[in-house]
Amino acid sequence: MDLKSLIRDIPDFPKPGIMFRDITTLLRDRDGLRYTIDLLQQKCHEANLTVDYVVGMESRGFIFGTPLAYKLDAGFIPVRKPGKLPAAVHSVEYQLEYGTDCLEIHQDALPVGSKVLIVDDLIATGGTAVATAKLLQKVGCELVGFGFIIELRDLNGRRHLPNVPIISLVEY
Amino acid sequence: MDLKSLIRDIPDFPKPGIMFRDITTLLRDRDGLRYTIDLLQQKCHEANLTVDYVVGMESRGFIFGTPLAYKLDAGFIPVRKPGKLPAAVHSVEYQLEYGTDCLEIHQDALPVGSKVLIVDDLIATGGTAVATAKLLQKVGCELVGFGFIIELRDLNGRRHLPNVPIISLVEY
Repeated sequence: MDLKSLIRDIPDFPKPGIMFRDITTLLRDRDGLRYTIDLLQQKCHEANLTVDYVVGMESRGFIFGTPLAYKLDAGFIPVRKPGKLPAAVHSVEYQLEYGTDCLEIHQDALPVGSKVLIVDDLIATGGTAVATAKLLQKVGCELVGFGFIIELRDLNGRRHLPNVPIISLVEY
Repeated sequence: MDLKSLIRDIPDFPKPGIMFRDITTLLRDRDGLRYTIDLLQQKCHEANLTVDYVVGMESRGFIFGTPLAYKLDAGFIPVRKPGKLPAAVHSVEYQLEYGTDCLEIHQDALPVGSKVLIVDDLIATGGTAVATAKLLQKVGCELVGFGFIIELRDLNGRRHLPNVPIISLVEY
């Protein structure tokens, strides 16, 4: 299946000069959704990943992370924007093009030593993925890999990631 | 399986006097996650629902909506906060305890006449669910039901919902 044909290109969003890769057209296609999740699962198996938990970042990471966790028979852990998680959290600040952003994880989110896969819809510069990897260090987990639907190769985000398998399904 | 035993009660979040029902402890339990999704699917079948699309609201509706869409062999449609969806949208404002909030759906999100199930983690007063039902009216869909993990019965949110089957797995 040609996943790229199900992803819609929207120029100048969220601002002029940016070509936005819109996954809503992929999600609404039931065959495309099924194929995407099954392919992510298959690539995890091919990479021999043992995954106790899938971690997904708010909010598009939730969309792919939870069904993948289900398929891998793993638990799902949400990483969220500040103030959303109700119990004690670890926080990491990270740089955006202008200013900073922050992500949080529950301090007791998962057992020390757990094997964790980080999942998001897209990797661009890698800032969100790196911040999430830092959160997992704080809770004492073992990062075993990353899974993305879309990789923007020109931005070379994978260069910043820890040295674990990086799965991506579609490249631009 | 006793789902309620996997949901954590956190008093005084997000503000004093509120008992927050924390689903992160359910999500991280792989058996609990699997059971939750399978039970939602089973209850859709028992209610004889035909579901072309699952609609989930940002962002906890994404967590349960996407795996359920996968299991029902349906597409998934995200309803999002303002400014997140990249193409032309319909918007609905709705009342909060203090002030208003707004939800959006792509105008071309799904074909006219599609059969749609709305999924969220929790129904309290029903404001978000009613707003989402209004968005579906704007795109000309047929709402066939609602699915929630948690229902707060005292707030009687279901009283405000359209007359379709309402599935909830855990009541408080």
